[in-house]
Parts: sequence; C-alpha cells; structure tokens
Amino acid sequence: MVVRRINRPVVGIVPGDPNGIGPEVVVKAWASGRLKAHCRPVVVGSPSVIEKALDDVGACLSINVVKSTYHLSKDEQTIDILNVYPYQASASNCGSDTVEAGAATGAWLDHADRLAREGVFNATVMGPISSKAMELANTLSSVAVFKAEPAYLVLRSGRLVIAHLTDHTPLREVSSAITRDSVYVLIEKFSNALREWGVGNGKTAVAGFNPHASGIEESNEIKPAVDLARAKGLDIEGPISPDTVFRQVIEGRYDAVIAMYHDQGHIALKTWGFSGNSVVFLGPPYVHTTVAHGVAFDIAGTGKADGAMMLNAILDSAHLAQGKGFFSPT
Amino acid sequence: MVVRRINRPVVGIVPGDPNGIGPEVVVKAWASGRLKAHCRPVVVGSPSVIEKALDDVGACLSINVVKSTYHLSKDEQTIDILNVYPYQASASNCGSDTVEAGAATGAWLDHADRLAREGVFNATVMGPISSKAMELANTLSSVAVFKAEPAYLVLRSGRLVIAHLTDHTPLREVSSAITRDSVYVLIEKFSNALREWGVGNGKTAVAGFNPHASGIEESNEIKPAVDLARAKGLDIEGPISPDTVFRQVIEGRYDAVIAMYHDQGHIALKTWGFSGNSVVFLGPPYVHTTVAHGVAFDIAGTGKADGAMMLNAILDSAHLAQGKGFFSPT
Repeated sequence: MVVRRINRPVVGIVPGDPNGIGPEVVVKAWASGRLKAHCRPVVVGSPSVIEKALDDVGACLSINVVKSTYHLSKDEQTIDILNVYPYQASASNCGSDTVEAGAATGAWLDHADRLAREGVFNATVMGPISSKAMELANTLSSVAVFKAEPAYLVLRSGRLVIAHLTDHTPLREVSSAITRDSVYVLIEKFSNALREWGVGNGKTAVAGFNPHASGIEESNEIKPAVDLARAKGLDIEGPISPDTVFRQVIEGRYDAVIAMYHDQGHIALKTWGFSGNSVVFLGPPYVHTTVAHGVAFDIAGTGKADGAMMLNAILDSAHLAQGKGFFSPT
Repeated sequence: MVVRRINRPVVGIVPGDPNGIGPEVVVKAWASGRLKAHCRPVVVGSPSVIEKALDDVGACLSINVVKSTYHLSKDEQTIDILNVYPYQASASNCGSDTVEAGAATGAWLDHADRLAREGVFNATVMGPISSKAMELANTLSSVAVFKAEPAYLVLRSGRLVIAHLTDHTPLREVSSAITRDSVYVLIEKFSNALREWGVGNGKTAVAGFNPHASGIEESNEIKPAVDLARAKGLDIEGPISPDTVFRQVIEGRYDAVIAMYHDQGHIALKTWGFSGNSVVFLGPPYVHTTVAHGVAFDIAGTGKADGAMMLNAILDSAHLAQGKGFFSPT
C-alpha cells in the first residue's frame, strides 16, 4: 500500500460497464462540483461513453481529452478523460451485456491499475461492472485489480468500517476458511491499511463466528490469531460477540471491525441504515474504491441513477490516499 | 396459543433469579405506575424477595400477598404477590449462584406455567434467570416452560420482529438444521402467533441463509417450505437476501421476519440500536415474554438496574395476550 501524503491526489476513475449506470453516476458526481477541492480526478475510458452519459443526465459539462495527468483542467465543469480504449457508446446496447462492453471495462481497469502501480494515480475508483459482460470478453479472470491476493472487501458507512474475511463463500463452508493464519493475515493487512489511511487510531475489533463468540472457531483459530497480533503490538481486541461488536464500533469503542463472513458485516451495515456506503478493496498496492450498487441495467440510460455513492467513493479514495481517513461530509 | 380478547389481562410475573437484578427491575417497572392501565399484574414469588428489592431500589410501594387472582389490588402503588415457594432473600447471597435460588426460580416458573395453562394467567413474564443456579438445583431441565417443543426465540425492537429458527447452535451446524420441514413448522407456528397477537397483518419475510440468499439451503429447503406455506394461503415471502431483509421490515414492507440463525437476527436488531428490546418465547401455549438482559450479578442489589426492558416485557405480554400487537409507547 503506497499512501502519499500529498495535496489533491490524482484519482483515476473507471466508469465501469458502459451499458450500466456507471457513466451516469460518474457524470453526476462530477456535476456536484465537489471533486476538485479534494483531488485531481480523471476518467479512464472513452469520450463517447461520457458524452452519452452527459446527454442521458442532461448535465452541461465539457470534456477534455488528455494524454497525461499533467494536463488536467482546473475547471470544475470540465471532465478530463484519458482516452484509453476505442469504444463507441450506443443507446441500443444500453442495459445489456455485450462482449465489447466487457472488453472495454477490462481494458480501462487494467490501464488504471498500471498507472496506479506506477504512481501516476494515487488512487483508483471503479464504477459498477458487469461480471457477465467481462466473462463474455474473457476479461474477468485477467484483470489485475481482481487478482490481488489476498484481497478483502471493506465496507464503510458512517462510523462502521468493516473488513470481511470471506465474501461469497457458502456459509456452511466459512468455518473451514477461518484459520489462525487466515485471520492473522487479514488483521495485519487491515491494521497496516487503517494506519496508512488514517482511520482513527486503527483500534480494531475482531468479531467471533458463533453466538456470543463461543465455539471452537474462536478458541482454536480466532483467539490465537488475535493473541499473536497483540504480541506484535497491534491494537486488536477479540473475538467479540458478533451481535454486540458492530454497535460498539458505531459508538466509537473501535475504529473498525473484522467480520468473519459476508452477512455478518453486511447485515450490520445495511440494517443500521446510515446512508453513504462505500467500498474499498483491500488487496491492490494502492487505494481502490468502488460503489456498493450494481449496473442497474433497468434504469441505465435514463439519467435517473443516484450519483451519491460514486461521489462518496471518489472523495473516500482521495482522503484515504492522503492518510486523512474516510471522507466525512460536513 | 390461547389469546383471549379481554380487557386488562392477568399477567403473572416471575422475578427470575432472586440473587440477580430481576426483583429490582420488576419493582422499577411497577413503580412506573403504568402497569395497571394495561393489565392486572401479579408477582409469582416470595414476599421477602420483593421487600428486599423495594429496599434496594428505594421505592415506596406496599405489598399485598394474595391467595388468588380474584383479590388483586387496584392501587398502582401496591404490588400483589402470589406467595408460592418459601424463599428468604439475602443480601449476602446477592450476585452469586445458590442452589436455593435455583430451586425457587424453578418453582416460581412452574407455578406460573401451570396457572397460565389453566387460564388463570393470560400471559406470563419471566425476569432474568441464572442457568447455573437452576442447574445446581436440578430445575433447569425440569421446568415446563423450557420444555415446549418446538420453541423459538422471538426478538422485538420497534418495528423489527424476528423469530429465530436456531438459537445457540454452532454456526457450522446450522446448515443441517435447515430443512423444509423445520422451516415450514416455524413459518406456520409464527404466522398463527402473529395473527393471534395482532402484529400487523402478519405479512412475514423469510431470510435466506447464504450471501444474497443464493445457495443449496435456499433452493433445496427454504424455498420449498415457503412455497408450501404460500400454497396453504399464508402471507409469506422468501428466501430474501439476509443483508437487506431486516431493513425491509424496519421500513414496513413486512410485519415480521424469520431468521435462520441467532446472529442473523441478533446482529440486525442490536446494531440497528432501537431501544426497548423485548423477547417472546414462541413455544408455550400462552404468551410468555422475558427481558433481553441477564441477571447482571455485578450490580445486583445496588438499585442501579434499568427497569425499562421489564416494563416493555410486561406491557408487550399484556398487549399480545389481547391480540393488540406489541406495545407501542406513545
């Protein structure tokens, strides 16, 4: 993880699948006029995709196609674009999965990944992608940002910052994914990230797996991992009863929490109902955020999509890349 | 389940373990002066336990030992007690597990259960018990209210009403407890109870088990159970993604939800943070509520315990027994 304590980091924004709402939410986030106070944003994509999104949304922004990040505009009403892969937006493909869209998404993501690894971007943001389109184009398995190992999903909503040990693993198989080593690796990686990102003091709780954190997964795997982390000086506590730990984070006792499985964290966050979720992929060696919503093919091209989550994802990436913690609206 | 649509139901209140905070929270609930507008409450216990609690709390209520529920006082400041089992409260035992306390708890619970089954009580309320004390006295396994089969924990907080298919089952074993039959039995029992209790229209969601309700437990067990229930005319939907279903209940799309495991429901309810949790045991053939807190031995006898949950449990039991739904503070 390379976090540079610089002013206004360069943030590369991949709109995601061009047939989904990604381009529209990027345009809406841009039209808020709030990006350039926090970062130097630049779209990685094709101008025609953004032109179409401007039409769909009815936003009056101009487009500035740049060859490098040295030439970014200072005007809030100008969208800078690195023209990376030839793709022609089409209203007729809107809302459907095409091989061309999957190929473009993959090319944009790989370009952004390369520039981030080279230090040209300080962070990247990904709009909603279509796994199906990327599978059609054989890009889903090849894109570098998805191949980071190990990689974890970090969800954030208000004070709740949750890293997940497992993602879409069937719940009956999660027990065997919980080992002292797997838990320790996440603890160490997440603790380092929280410190670099500047999230509070990085004080982290580890949730148990069973009711009241009372079972063999806790005694044999989770507790030994926590003990090892504490012995190495990390500010970690756990395993803590899963049904109380998330409220403790909300109330400020911890800065973040490690969940053992997808729904443990997702139920807490989505039921709490604080708006403004954002998502960070803990895996690539740079800050990489995305939105919690999907491509919403049913409303793609209508201009109805809400750009709030994309705005959050961009501002979060800019703040994390500067070690300023998550963005807090004031 | 016998729900009688009567005015001011008779509610039998067992203080729970006499060395815990149970007697104090009963006294505090009584001292609120709000019980007798909703029910005819009567303690099932020993006068010395309530006398000590009045001292601990510093409440000025009088005690009226009655032989039957025909002789209950109308005065809000009078605590009526059915003197059931000889037990002498002791400050020195406060905060510890004793065989005498476990024996008394068991005797009080059994007496209340018998009167409820006979129709003398319209509902019962249980203060926090100590499993350890009851084990010492060999009452834990014999008490009738704990032997109801099948029995389920229903948690309620504000609009969230959650029945749990499994309770303290280790999470790795929950998958095998999810069968078409086990899910269907709970759906039917809970639907009937919601209708008798008067909880909304009884429209109920069934949570899935896996992320996004996508796995073999959903397709092989949960969905067939829901389909069967719908074919029988029950107003049931599911399986629904566990990370969104609880918010849908809060927002009024459903009146209640069935959770597959302890933490699925408990994480939602406790993270949401709405105050005034209450607990109903779905199992005995009468309304039986309890509090979501424990004996709190560390503060027992100090008068510090908060009586709000006990007040909720009593008012909920009174309202449910009349088919008026859960109590809503106005």
